Amino acid sequence: MTRRCSLGLDFGTESARAVIVDIADGSIVGQATCAYTHGVIDRQLPDSSIPLPADYALQHPRDWLESAAAATRGALAQAQGVTADHLVGIGVDFTSCTMLPCTKDGTPLCLLDRFRTTPLAWPKLWKHHGAKAETDRINRIARERNEPWLPRYGGTVGLEWFFPKILETLHHAPEVFDAAEIWIEAGDWLVWQLVSGPFPGCDPNSLTRSTCQAGYKALWNRTTGYPSAQFLAAVHPKLSDIVPRALPGVHRAPGEPAGRLSESAARMLGLRSGIAVSTAIIDAHAGVPGAGAAEPDTMVLVMGTSSCHMLNSRVETFAEGIAGVVEGGILPGYFGYETGQASVGDAFAWLVETFGLSHEQLSSRAARLPPGSGGVIALDWLNGCRTPLMDGRLSGALVGLTLGTRPEQLYRALMEATAFGLRWIVQTLRDAQVPVRRFVASGGLPARNPLLMQIYADVLQEPISLAESEQSVALGAAIIGCVSAGEELTGYRSVESAIRAMARQRQQPVYRPSAEASSIYQELYQLYRQLADPKGTVATTMHALHELRG
Amino acid sequence: MTRRCSLGLDFGTESARAVIVDIADGSIVGQATCAYTHGVIDRQLPDSSIPLPADYALQHPRDWLESAAAATRGALAQAQGVTADHLVGIGVDFTSCTMLPCTKDGTPLCLLDRFRTTPLAWPKLWKHHGAKAETDRINRIARERNEPWLPRYGGTVGLEWFFPKILETLHHAPEVFDAAEIWIEAGDWLVWQLVSGPFPGCDPNSLTRSTCQAGYKALWNRTTGYPSAQFLAAVHPKLSDIVPRALPGVHRAPGEPAGRLSESAARMLGLRSGIAVSTAIIDAHAGVPGAGAAEPDTMVLVMGTSSCHMLNSRVETFAEGIAGVVEGGILPGYFGYETGQASVGDAFAWLVETFGLSHEQLSSRAARLPPGSGGVIALDWLNGCRTPLMDGRLSGALVGLTLGTRPEQLYRALMEATAFGLRWIVQTLRDAQVPVRRFVASGGLPARNPLLMQIYADVLQEPISLAESEQSVALGAAIIGCVSAGEELTGYRSVESAIRAMARQRQQPVYRPSAEASSIYQELYQLYRQLADPKGTVATTMHALHELRG
Repeated sequence: MTRRCSLGLDFGTESARAVIVDIADGSIVGQATCAYTHGVIDRQLPDSSIPLPADYALQHPRDWLESAAAATRGALAQAQGVTADHLVGIGVDFTSCTMLPCTKDGTPLCLLDRFRTTPLAWPKLWKHHGAKAETDRINRIARERNEPWLPRYGGTVGLEWFFPKILETLHHAPEVFDAAEIWIEAGDWLVWQLVSGPFPGCDPNSLTRSTCQAGYKALWNRTTGYPSAQFLAAVHPKLSDIVPRALPGVHRAPGEPAGRLSESAARMLGLRSGIAVSTAIIDAHAGVPGAGAAEPDTMVLVMGTSSCHMLNSRVETFAEGIAGVVEGGILPGYFGYETGQASVGDAFAWLVETFGLSHEQLSSRAARLPPGSGGVIALDWLNGCRTPLMDGRLSGALVGLTLGTRPEQLYRALMEATAFGLRWIVQTLRDAQVPVRRFVASGGLPARNPLLMQIYADVLQEPISLAESEQSVALGAAIIGCVSAGEELTGYRSVESAIRAMARQRQQPVYRPSAEASSIYQELYQLYRQLADPKGTVATTMHALHELRG
Repeated sequence: MTRRCSLGLDFGTESARAVIVDIADGSIVGQATCAYTHGVIDRQLPDSSIPLPADYALQHPRDWLESAAAATRGALAQAQGVTADHLVGIGVDFTSCTMLPCTKDGTPLCLLDRFRTTPLAWPKLWKHHGAKAETDRINRIARERNEPWLPRYGGTVGLEWFFPKILETLHHAPEVFDAAEIWIEAGDWLVWQLVSGPFPGCDPNSLTRSTCQAGYKALWNRTTGYPSAQFLAAVHPKLSDIVPRALPGVHRAPGEPAGRLSESAARMLGLRSGIAVSTAIIDAHAGVPGAGAAEPDTMVLVMGTSSCHMLNSRVETFAEGIAGVVEGGILPGYFGYETGQASVGDAFAWLVETFGLSHEQLSSRAARLPPGSGGVIALDWLNGCRTPLMDGRLSGALVGLTLGTRPEQLYRALMEATAFGLRWIVQTLRDAQVPVRRFVASGGLPARNPLLMQIYADVLQEPISLAESEQSVALGAAIIGCVSAGEELTGYRSVESAIRAMARQRQQPVYRPSAEASSIYQELYQLYRQLADPKGTVATTMHALHELRG
């Protein structure tokens, strides 16, 4: 039987990665990464010297295509015994909500001469934070109107989401808003380029939007669609017809086909046209299939500078503070839950870099400390609190300092704090009757940091296994690419069977909770929750300090 | 007119300092320091390899005499045109409560062969912390019996005080307790050695105890004396007769004469016998005359690794959290108020040393930050909270950390926190109707750290001047030594007139509050007080963490 492979295209914040995966067992046969030429555009636009506001973060759409092409060619060149002929499908994962305005033929507005120097015509990266006032307005009106979709998002629309970014453009660059024929997530735009483009040749009738991106970031729901025209009109009269006018496309779940690779896109990537292209998926969410989580009720901890904790469930319930419950949001057939911690690896790196310490030394010393970091406790909100408080005005804290406190105590206390934060998330889900039965960690941090994983196991009082692949996000993209090619070509009847064959957890190490440590952490977790009380003194103080920072 | 001088002997934690001062204007004509041979004895006794418990801190009594002799001879050698003949008086300041058991002739028990290897027979340094359980017992019984002297100490007896240290000895070395004919503060012992010794030649009938030491550390009061026999018996039956049996001596205020220098003490110091010797004073309290605070209502900030804030007042009131209100406690004729912060310079040094940073760099960067440290606030309790909470279980905290927080923000936040702590102390006094009208800072820290002084002025919303002398504590000892020689010899009718002539504040710089900074600090102080609520979440958490540290 001929070898068959799938291509995973993983679009991160700084670069695109291509992995070529054998669909028989998920082994990576070739991979390459290509950094975006313009990276994150947060100081000035390309070919311009006008400084951007501090909370802006934009990207160049051509970077995505060029990096994808270079990475794909590189991966293919590396893959021994594999040629373009072996590829049966392509999957795309992308940061989210990264989005852009474009014309009907797929051309990004920023590439038109008249908008080249208009910052808000450029794609807004997920971490573009220009829409603060707009987010407040959308939340206020949604709460006043008691919008039915609001509970699905834990009661709060996020600053980084789709409609705040549109409204920001409408407020601050109305000419861009007026010219935008289509508003689209970058992941969907990329898939559209593959099946119908690249621009300017795209056909809006062949545009497929991902239930994952639309569900988590654009307030879309399989049953009721986008927010009502009445709500949108209340936010701004010019938004009343935005859905029929500028959000064309059908919605499909990741793994469902979006189309087949076009001639010109095939030329761009150095592949053969006609290959299946899956609907896009958000990068963190691709970590779920990539970590081998085929069954529901397994929480996948995608851990890096920040963490996303993802869960597929048969149960749909809304819990305060759970930012998104989306049918088909991660994989078809399940309700996908997304939760997150805004600062994990970043918090540890802050300590190390700010004080010029050594990760290795701190780690080995922290490992010798008992649970509880010798009497220091932290709040891990150095970048705000995502789940369950959804509050960017919160900040970090260290409590219990003495003249004898050593840096490794602070380091360990920050680790323990992120573990307490995760436990709070799990408890929030379970309190809402969402089963969480198994834990799989993926991403760079778990493999490098056994102490952290042991602390997580002790704090959760649950065993944690590690995803086998160190590229679980890109592998996840390759898996949905494979699935989109259909059973006839791949032999896989379902996403689950593809995941089972292509991804798995390591046998060793599995981190198991120690009874002694768990019992100490049980008490410390109560202290953490007490300090973290959103109506308590510490949170109130943090809000005032946030005002002070301006 | 012959030049007349006074000798100040300043006994610190690590060394003794001698200053020879011209009584006409307070100018220092000679000074020398001599470190104690055995320093702080906290690992093992001299000539012994038995390890001491972690909370022990002892001293060698012979070190005090030898260092005093060497420093006095050194100071005299340095003083041009001044000989022993020019000296009219000697004043002694000493750390407190540093105390020891001795025999009737002044011999420290630790120097007897049978007690040489018994740790609790040795002088206990002020920071000896072995009496935790004993302090708890004394406090519990005093509260149960509603002892009349308790309000004078803000409602709490301190761990470092006189009776806890006696009770500790009784519990853990009963043979030492039984052999102790006299229990005495080291400052009083030293003065006794000068006027009647040195041992073994001392006469208990010529023993003078300082109202300063007895008042602040031994629960003594001019009107009612020591705690009652009933109370002491309730603490331990063997304490019922401790006062008549083992606390001989008359009580005099600093500046009142204790006697005249004995022949053999004069030989030891290289001086002439017959010179007036003042009653002892606690080191920090000597900073009040030494800083030129002749009038009441002037708060003297004696700032170093920790801070003592001292005030003479015509008003006697008791306020919760004010650790000592003592008639004649600092100078004759006034009620002396002692307040303190357990960690000031120590807290800044913790940050610098723990993280290997540079004081100079942090200081200059912190000076460029606006009030509020860019949104970081601290609690300065890295060594517990002395005034007003009297709670050693509290610890430090840093709140408002973000991924962009820099070390200089933490450094400045710690400075601001100590300023807020001082403002709380001042407010506690004023709320109790004790006037606080002027502020003078002394000690090493203020002269070196203009940023800190400006922050204090801005937070207090009061001008702060600096003591002129950098040796204000030793100068204060010399002033009381001068006063004890009497008007006929010195020309000074009162302590006040001696202080006015011999000590003063600098004309420049005087730190004046800026309206803008004060208004920001006004808000931040409210946040500090909210975080510092002794019944609040943060304090509760710190208590739990203290348990955890064990």
